[in-house]
Amino acid sequence: MKTNFKKKGENSLRVIPLGGLNEIGKNMTVLEYKDEILIIDCGLSFPDDEMYGIDIVLPDFTYLIKNASKIKGIVITHGHEDHIGGIPFFLKHINVPIYGTRLPLGLIGNKLKEHRLTANLNVIKAGDTFKLGCFKVETIRTTHSIVDSICLSIETPVGVVFHTGDFKIDYTPLDGEPIDFHRLAEIGKKGVLLMLADSTNAIRAGFTASEKIVGKALESIFRDSTTRIIVATFSSNVHRVQRIVDNAVMFDRRVAISGRSMVNVVNLAMELGYLKIPAGVLIDINKIRGIPDKNIVIVTTGSQGEPMAALSRMAAGDHKAIQIKKGDMVILSSSPIPGNEKTVSNIVNKLFEKGAQVIYSDIADIHVSGHACEEELKLMHVLIKPKFFMPVHGEYRHLMAHAAIAENLGQKPENVFILNNGKVLNLTANSAFITHEDIPSEPVLVDGLGVGDVGNIVLRDRKLLSESGLIIVVAAIDRATGEICSGPDIISRGFVYVRENEDLIEEARVVVCKALDKCVDGNIREWNALKSAVRDSLRSFIYEKTKRSPVILPIFLEV
Amino acid sequence: MKTNFKKKGENSLRVIPLGGLNEIGKNMTVLEYKDEILIIDCGLSFPDDEMYGIDIVLPDFTYLIKNASKIKGIVITHGHEDHIGGIPFFLKHINVPIYGTRLPLGLIGNKLKEHRLTANLNVIKAGDTFKLGCFKVETIRTTHSIVDSICLSIETPVGVVFHTGDFKIDYTPLDGEPIDFHRLAEIGKKGVLLMLADSTNAIRAGFTASEKIVGKALESIFRDSTTRIIVATFSSNVHRVQRIVDNAVMFDRRVAISGRSMVNVVNLAMELGYLKIPAGVLIDINKIRGIPDKNIVIVTTGSQGEPMAALSRMAAGDHKAIQIKKGDMVILSSSPIPGNEKTVSNIVNKLFEKGAQVIYSDIADIHVSGHACEEELKLMHVLIKPKFFMPVHGEYRHLMAHAAIAENLGQKPENVFILNNGKVLNLTANSAFITHEDIPSEPVLVDGLGVGDVGNIVLRDRKLLSESGLIIVVAAIDRATGEICSGPDIISRGFVYVRENEDLIEEARVVVCKALDKCVDGNIREWNALKSAVRDSLRSFIYEKTKRSPVILPIFLEV
Repeated sequence: MKTNFKKKGENSLRVIPLGGLNEIGKNMTVLEYKDEILIIDCGLSFPDDEMYGIDIVLPDFTYLIKNASKIKGIVITHGHEDHIGGIPFFLKHINVPIYGTRLPLGLIGNKLKEHRLTANLNVIKAGDTFKLGCFKVETIRTTHSIVDSICLSIETPVGVVFHTGDFKIDYTPLDGEPIDFHRLAEIGKKGVLLMLADSTNAIRAGFTASEKIVGKALESIFRDSTTRIIVATFSSNVHRVQRIVDNAVMFDRRVAISGRSMVNVVNLAMELGYLKIPAGVLIDINKIRGIPDKNIVIVTTGSQGEPMAALSRMAAGDHKAIQIKKGDMVILSSSPIPGNEKTVSNIVNKLFEKGAQVIYSDIADIHVSGHACEEELKLMHVLIKPKFFMPVHGEYRHLMAHAAIAENLGQKPENVFILNNGKVLNLTANSAFITHEDIPSEPVLVDGLGVGDVGNIVLRDRKLLSESGLIIVVAAIDRATGEICSGPDIISRGFVYVRENEDLIEEARVVVCKALDKCVDGNIREWNALKSAVRDSLRSFIYEKTKRSPVILPIFLEV
Repeated sequence: MKTNFKKKGENSLRVIPLGGLNEIGKNMTVLEYKDEILIIDCGLSFPDDEMYGIDIVLPDFTYLIKNASKIKGIVITHGHEDHIGGIPFFLKHINVPIYGTRLPLGLIGNKLKEHRLTANLNVIKAGDTFKLGCFKVETIRTTHSIVDSICLSIETPVGVVFHTGDFKIDYTPLDGEPIDFHRLAEIGKKGVLLMLADSTNAIRAGFTASEKIVGKALESIFRDSTTRIIVATFSSNVHRVQRIVDNAVMFDRRVAISGRSMVNVVNLAMELGYLKIPAGVLIDINKIRGIPDKNIVIVTTGSQGEPMAALSRMAAGDHKAIQIKKGDMVILSSSPIPGNEKTVSNIVNKLFEKGAQVIYSDIADIHVSGHACEEELKLMHVLIKPKFFMPVHGEYRHLMAHAAIAENLGQKPENVFILNNGKVLNLTANSAFITHEDIPSEPVLVDGLGVGDVGNIVLRDRKLLSESGLIIVVAAIDRATGEICSGPDIISRGFVYVRENEDLIEEARVVVCKALDKCVDGNIREWNALKSAVRDSLRSFIYEKTKRSPVILPIFLEV
């Protein structure tokens, strides 16, 4: 296999997704030609329910560390965490130049400050063309739920690779700058070898609505409201924040910002000119006391129910500056990201209980997606007309649906490639195939300062501990005689409430003593055998009595 | 307050929700008049994410156990787990007669067998009237996602209490027996003092579609399919299963059943005549080998992504009888219950990866809700015209939305009562108010055989253990000298992968030794003080090194 690959691969382009396939998160794509590598995006993802105690998840950088000298740079499509969040961790291994538009670079700059890192950041703008080794990169303006998003058209020695980045087709974006259709048409006409395209909404029919309808919904809420308004949304959605500010100005409200990431992004976006707030409108969240409720709007984070974010703290009643009171109008301008539905509805319930009116996406048009639905994807395919197509940015079901869309438009099924992370698409001017390589691409878990030191064994232990807790059996054994000279003591955590179950614990102690006696009678002195005997007998006893399986940990000390 | 209550309450009806408010689950409502109690439903709920290791959740029966002699019986509205699942646990405390239609009683009978209990089960049918003490209960046919569902109209000494049970308004149910509108109209005309009504879909505008449209969608899938069909749905939805069987017969397929609860319900429903399967159509799941794929349909559980259910096992590739293969048509005839979205999409992805075609509710009309949307609720309110109204069966946001619907129809806001579980609505012929009592109604957690022995402390420990694992420090101390004669040893679980972090563990041991030495130097011998010293110094060290906070457990043995 390997030989076969080498022969074919020598003058070919290798496209390697290290993240973003079969998941929505940690997007990272590698283009490799001979001894040159270009990287598109470097994101993180958030842990799923089974990743106990994990803070964030990164792509595996092993392959890139091994090939560090080949890397010409990282090109960023836009400033969302699943596209830029991995950068500080990557730069700790390899310091390569980064290319991006102003907002994502500003956000990356903030991250680097936090991590006390410096980097070679290169500002580009939509329409720019620049060379990275053998790759000639052209950026094209697109529309998404964050400003300053771009598509990439990359001339490589084998042909043009076009990457949509994340996109929707918004004919009426707030900044009046829609997708650059003309340029897309030209690129398509000249010929594209491979397109990689956003699949997030491939299972949704029709079109994603314009950001404009959210503006209208917000306006009607602002117009009718005579109480305090609190709007929670994604801090990165600068257009959304601008619309809230516009409404505030229109209806004579001052704007207070809550939540660290919202404060950071608002400051950055104002600095860069993406967000325009007239003088005197912004007010410190700690200084709103004197202002009538009808003249206040609070813009905050936490629309996904993140437990530490400002809205969660307001709902729980432990936000320092804001106490929710009867009549407050709370708007969750967002949709729950899959997996967050329950947490978000918990917050909605708590806000209602505190007497607030709550408007969320189930009951009003106060959020639109940032990703293209079926009809928009069709438009992109028809414009770009790629020879080969690789759906990206989606779970398997999204990739499959996107492939079906392409095939319905006449794309040949044999030219559609659904990859897994770590697989390699080998590309020449007239051929494409998936090689038999497996580039390391398992998720790398970050817990506190540890990157990758929590693996399956640790996670399995955390899961077991979370399900039934643990029982520790501890005893001291006389080195000379082999007899127990202290204990066995039984200690438990997360198993039962011990004070109300003293009998059970005492019975368990008796079971352990019997097991040890039996070992002594049988002249079994080897510690592992002793431990097994204790563990097995205690496990059966506990399961019979409680139908639970706590972790059982026998510890012997030699004295 | 108590005196006040007693004076007012003596000739009044007390309505006490013990479950089902501010949650969707464990429905249980108590009606109490003088020394007589009638109970409506006795459900369970499933644990939320924070209830580590918990199997199921029950209402708190304390109040009923204290007042056991007053209880005349439990009336069941329908056979879903959130209405009958608590019964075996309740009967272990108090054996009272149970009244229900045939299907719920059959399901309860199965449960009692499993728990080795017997009970006084009384079959009633829609339209029946019977007396339980001072309560005259009338049952009215309704439509829901399980057959044999009823509303209850209960004549009490202070007036009529009407309970909708769970319902939707299906004009074209599969069995041709719609809601008994005529009787509802008569009851409303005679006058209803209090209505308790299902709020599950109160935030949804419009109407819930009829079960009939699912039949149509299934038919078109069956008509077009030439491969094996696997349909996952709720076992309790007998009409859905009937429709699958009808399609199987129509398109010459035999039906195999997979999943314990599906087998149980199918058998029961056939026995009771609710499910009609022509002879020769059913086939044992283990005997399908010889039959062509186009002549097979498999009906299975697991549409909610339950990890142990048949569909999950098929998706994971460890189902005994069924291996998913390319071309299989898998239909998830259900919507994810809030909180299950991620698990369900994981299964969908896995099925796609195995080459199956997967149809789920996001992409086709293969499921409808069993609960009334806004327009249906309006119809119920207008028919029943209650003097007082208590929305039930919903989270706070659903109850609020339902209250708003009632008020928009002209219901006086002061006559609408949103309660919490454990609160008491005190009712006379012309007054209603919420008393100041708090009846115990905290969720009772069931873990294995233990009912209620896992409380907040145990759950907190499980949560802490799941987040960063634990570190145990163990040492033996000489009784005579107070000196350490063995250890300290450090053992960890779920913290870091020890083999790759031996240095860290060794450094931690040094930190512990220093802390103990300092105690010896300071002549500190008291064990709790020693433990604190070890715990504090190790916690700081570990946090500084890793930014993690494992549970730290110092254990000393005296020898």
